[in-house]
Amino acid sequence: MQISVKELSKLLQGEVIGDENALLHTVAKIEEGQPGALSFLANPKYEPHIYTTQSTAVLVNRSFIPESAITTTLIKVDDAYQAFTFLLEQFANVGKGTAGVDKSAVVEVNAKVHSSTFVGALTYIGQEAEIGEKCQIHPQVYIGAGVKIGNNVTLYPGVKIYHLCTIGDNCIVHAGAVIGSDGFGFAPLPDRSYKKIPQTGNVIVEADVEIGANCTIDRATMGSTVIKKGAKLDNLVQVAHNVEIGEHTVIASQSGIAGSTKIGKYCVIGGQVGFAGHITIADGSQFGAQSGIGGNITQTNGKWFGSPAIELRQALKAGVVYRKLPELEKRVQELEKLLKEIK
Amino acid sequence: MQISVKELSKLLQGEVIGDENALLHTVAKIEEGQPGALSFLANPKYEPHIYTTQSTAVLVNRSFIPESAITTTLIKVDDAYQAFTFLLEQFANVGKGTAGVDKSAVVEVNAKVHSSTFVGALTYIGQEAEIGEKCQIHPQVYIGAGVKIGNNVTLYPGVKIYHLCTIGDNCIVHAGAVIGSDGFGFAPLPDRSYKKIPQTGNVIVEADVEIGANCTIDRATMGSTVIKKGAKLDNLVQVAHNVEIGEHTVIASQSGIAGSTKIGKYCVIGGQVGFAGHITIADGSQFGAQSGIGGNITQTNGKWFGSPAIELRQALKAGVVYRKLPELEKRVQELEKLLKEIK
Amino acid sequence: MQISVKELSKLLQGEVIGDENALLHTVAKIEEGQPGALSFLANPKYEPHIYTTQSTAVLVNRSFIPESAITTTLIKVDDAYQAFTFLLEQFANVGKGTAGVDKSAVVEVNAKVHSSTFVGALTYIGQEAEIGEKCQIHPQVYIGAGVKIGNNVTLYPGVKIYHLCTIGDNCIVHAGAVIGSDGFGFAPLPDRSYKKIPQTGNVIVEADVEIGANCTIDRATMGSTVIKKGAKLDNLVQVAHNVEIGEHTVIASQSGIAGSTKIGKYCVIGGQVGFAGHITIADGSQFGAQSGIGGNITQTNGKWFGSPAIELRQALKAGVVYRKLPELEKRVQELEKLLKEIK
Repeated sequence: MQISVKELSKLLQGEVIGDENALLHTVAKIEEGQPGALSFLANPKYEPHIYTTQSTAVLVNRSFIPESAITTTLIKVDDAYQAFTFLLEQFANVGKGTAGVDKSAVVEVNAKVHSSTFVGALTYIGQEAEIGEKCQIHPQVYIGAGVKIGNNVTLYPGVKIYHLCTIGDNCIVHAGAVIGSDGFGFAPLPDRSYKKIPQTGNVIVEADVEIGANCTIDRATMGSTVIKKGAKLDNLVQVAHNVEIGEHTVIASQSGIAGSTKIGKYCVIGGQVGFAGHITIADGSQFGAQSGIGGNITQTNGKWFGSPAIELRQALKAGVVYRKLPELEKRVQELEKLLKEIK
Repeated sequence: MQISVKELSKLLQGEVIGDENALLHTVAKIEEGQPGALSFLANPKYEPHIYTTQSTAVLVNRSFIPESAITTTLIKVDDAYQAFTFLLEQFANVGKGTAGVDKSAVVEVNAKVHSSTFVGALTYIGQEAEIGEKCQIHPQVYIGAGVKIGNNVTLYPGVKIYHLCTIGDNCIVHAGAVIGSDGFGFAPLPDRSYKKIPQTGNVIVEADVEIGANCTIDRATMGSTVIKKGAKLDNLVQVAHNVEIGEHTVIASQSGIAGSTKIGKYCVIGGQVGFAGHITIADGSQFGAQSGIGGNITQTNGKWFGSPAIELRQALKAGVVYRKLPELEKRVQELEKLLKEIK
Repeated sequence: MQISVKELSKLLQGEVIGDENALLHTVAKIEEGQPGALSFLANPKYEPHIYTTQSTAVLVNRSFIPESAITTTLIKVDDAYQAFTFLLEQFANVGKGTAGVDKSAVVEVNAKVHSSTFVGALTYIGQEAEIGEKCQIHPQVYIGAGVKIGNNVTLYPGVKIYHLCTIGDNCIVHAGAVIGSDGFGFAPLPDRSYKKIPQTGNVIVEADVEIGANCTIDRATMGSTVIKKGAKLDNLVQVAHNVEIGEHTVIASQSGIAGSTKIGKYCVIGGQVGFAGHITIADGSQFGAQSGIGGNITQTNGKWFGSPAIELRQALKAGVVYRKLPELEKRVQELEKLLKEIK
């Protein structure tokens, strides 16, 4: 992954001003430049950075004329932003496989994989599973029996999808995520031990969803756990059985949602937030990091914070007084003393 | 995984009243019915739902006579509940393998696998490992050297068990869980760097334990980390080195237990709870979600909440005042002002 | 993994006093002795335990003379501590592979693996990846295209390293950890859905770093997420895109660091701690478990606790008053009542 300024310029039909033999191996924002990196300058607001950037080369528009001395190498192109975006897209193809099933993958005989899809090494595809068009199924993925996967889906290495779950078009699931594990359901017995309740539902992941690395999404006891269209889950998020995550809701890392809870659409949930089970959260709700939500939220578009979570502004004010609690207690003591004297 | 009402009825020796060509592909509670689903009615309390359910078909007892119009298709059987349970059990067999070792699995020559056990594709079984009867070892599992696994154990895809750990009879371990990784032990050196302390113990998982997806259970520095009989761990739970989890204790998702802590039996631990290291928790203790426990708990069967955790009722009361802290501060200010006037 | 006292003594050139046919299968601290275990006695402070230990055998110095009756078997050696350490090191080699690539591993043709390195079964190594000397790459590891791995690195089963990331010398990465997954970056669109921002950077893990089981470390949007020399991460830690973790900083389990945050060196971070994004934390900072840090910390070597985190001593004092809040409110009520009477 190293390219010379000369080669890159040729690729972009550009013009080099500076050292055409310099080598590039990464990209960086112009203000965070580093040796070996390529940056770009499109917005004039960032122009001052071009005189100080540490980047080895910078893509600029052909019209760009420096106002003072420049140490970085310039590559002049028709549209610097477009050229940079084009390079990023090329970059994003690193590690992508070409259509076809790797010979070390294990595909059960009655599974269906579209011919335009890539299935990487050491991946397992179970009976009656179906995988649509132009998918990237990376190495060491597990796809259980009867799983249905749409078109243009990317499953990164080590993703595990239990039997009978479905994944919609354009979804991206990151490495190590588990979809369809058993819900945490046990019935207490008279001797205080627990009996497992069969978890016979599945998980439905709708289109355009992204699921982070090592997330866990449990199958429903009956029916389906549902991640709706366009929702985005960061790494290590836990979604329990029979939960429903609304459309275009985003959930930051390490948050957890207990069983049967319904999260509305367009919600924004910070990191390490926890939701109790069997509650309903209104559309557009926002939650600060580490909040804990124990009951229904019926007001839409509210902002909440704290554990237990309260209205954000109230929480911030209470937090300010919290820090002064020892002092507040002394003030009350002082008052008690004064009143005693008065009486 | 689609079956017609007619086929299903034949399987259950039932009688169809309604559309025998309707197709079923899932199950649902009668009150959460949906097209394509099969429900059942056994408890008369739920009878009202049969007149409104969205389910395509409902299993009922032969004696059932509707009191008003019904749109769903009925399948009459001798015992609706028993028939439904039978179907769930059939369902639970989806994705289960039959006895034998898949040819793509890698089994070291001196490992022992009972002939009644299933070992899935691309699984690795290390030297001197022993696996008992009727186990389901799914694809892509890692079983390290010298690991001992009892009878009737299920290891889901991608489970990793480090060398010398033991798993008792009837245990279920979900995808991506790691058992036996090194404890987090480092000795500080004079230059403020750290030296690794060898982690030479193991993990002992006793019988009837269930461990959730992507859990991490560290091996002991010396001796054993122990998960006792019947304990149930939800997804993403962290168990540090030398911890002991008591019998029939349940731990919800994303909770963590620091090194050498002993949790008693019959405890109930909510989600995202944290326990400090080197403490002891009495039998039957219960902890609300997101609690943080920093010291020993000697009272049995207590209920605790908050971070740091205090007695539950006290915590709920303190939480109520917390929300009003800004107002409380104002009341104190007001008192101070009044007293100043009086003096 | 069972050895008789006789065999062990022979290995250590020791002298047996007691039952030389007794069998040993584990090690234990002398004060936590158990049948079948070997312990050692080096520090005279621990001598009292040798008269009561449950361990089957104890390594002692040749000079050791018991002061009362002993039931355990003694193995006398020149230096008991050194002999024990030697055994632990032997033990640590269990499950280690010998140099060479397992025939079931999939290595792309232009990847480079040093001949002294072990590559386990069912591991995948992508195009242009390079692996240095004396590494232990366990089974079922994924190493993406262009990944560079230094010397003496251990990757446990199921570790996944996305394309173009780099791992320094002597690093240890535990099972299921994911390095280089996409950062959580989305641009909101006018219709309130989200567009993915390409994540084109990588992760650089410097030398002597240990990363726990099922950790997730995201690649940078541009540039690099960096884990600096000697840092130690426990299990299930989340490191977001463009984060920097300073040298010799230790982070306990289930903590998370949001995007672009810089953590200084020599920090000590408890379990389940959360850091907001885009903040900077001074060197030597310490954080209690479950703390939440929302802003910059500029003071070095400070101790912090709580969510939001405040100075540790202040936090402990505020916590004490918190428990008494209902009582404090009553005292204020009482004052208000008294003052009303006075007026």
